[in-house]
Amino acid sequence: MPKIDINAAPVKTGSIYPEPYNGQMAGRRSQRLGEHAGLTQFGVNIVHLEAGAPASLRHWHLREDEFAMVLTGELVLVEDAGETVMRAGDCAAWQAGVPDAHRFINRSQAPASFLIVGSKAEEEEATYGDVDMKIHISGGKARFTYHDGSDWSGPRDLAASGIAPKGDSK
Amino acid sequence: MPKIDINAAPVKTGSIYPEPYNGQMAGRRSQRLGEHAGLTQFGVNIVHLEAGAPASLRHWHLREDEFAMVLTGELVLVEDAGETVMRAGDCAAWQAGVPDAHRFINRSQAPASFLIVGSKAEEEEATYGDVDMKIHISGGKARFTYHDGSDWSGPRDLAASGIAPKGDSK
Repeated sequence: MPKIDINAAPVKTGSIYPEPYNGQMAGRRSQRLGEHAGLTQFGVNIVHLEAGAPASLRHWHLREDEFAMVLTGELVLVEDAGETVMRAGDCAAWQAGVPDAHRFINRSQAPASFLIVGSKAEEEEATYGDVDMKIHISGGKARFTYHDGSDWSGPRDLAASGIAPKGDSK
Repeated sequence: MPKIDINAAPVKTGSIYPEPYNGQMAGRRSQRLGEHAGLTQFGVNIVHLEAGAPASLRHWHLREDEFAMVLTGELVLVEDAGETVMRAGDCAAWQAGVPDAHRFINRSQAPASFLIVGSKAEEEEATYGDVDMKIHISGGKARFTYHDGSDWSGPRDLAASGIAPKGDSK
């Protein structure tokens, strides 16, 4: 029966980010629908954000396309060029390899949610736009580095690393 | 600006099916969001069905995972095992290679719509569950055959071909 029992899907809270970034992801919860349904070629999650919660650090993917649709409430999409308010039915998409870091944040006073779909590349790399960090995923394992590829060993902001930050880093 | 202007997305009506099947797809319209946003790794469409309209012939994909979420109205999901009524927020998913032919049909008195996501394999094959036809896609071109792989040259029902139909063929 391919209709998905959404409430039976695994729920993930928090993030795989090292501290202090993991602690900034409070109020975020993700229902892993695609995994629950046995899909392997792309991921499908419903992400729920409490008032004030961000979905992620602002990031862009090297090899994976992404698509999102807001399902409930009001979210703000933050990119290099600024902010866009999005409501139920609004969609956004990001082509792999385009270096425009993005994230959703719930700046409203009520919960909000969105559907997110992303390809599953064997090897993936995502670059964070507001902090000096990258994630490298290979064989299901994640490794964090600075933008220059050296091992991450603690928070370093972009200015201190000599990298000009872009857009809104709120 | 990755927010998608949904009304600017290309709209497709009808199907690529040969007649008489193409004529059975009246009342179907698809907004090609993923293509509009430049995504290449998976397709994302919003399909609108008038009262009575089906989204497709009942089919299953050999190599491509699929995911759907009902957005508005009420749809019926038809599979080998029977029918499931689905409403806004209900989701379904189909793993590549599982031979359970499925389709949505709008049996209600009002329009309905759903979001559909599917991987884009280089070479793809889909088998129709209620009629003796398969589609083979290669290099962006479609070719229709009977289930036995011989060239399709006109409608042939499954019983006449000695294939036992499964499930509900309404």
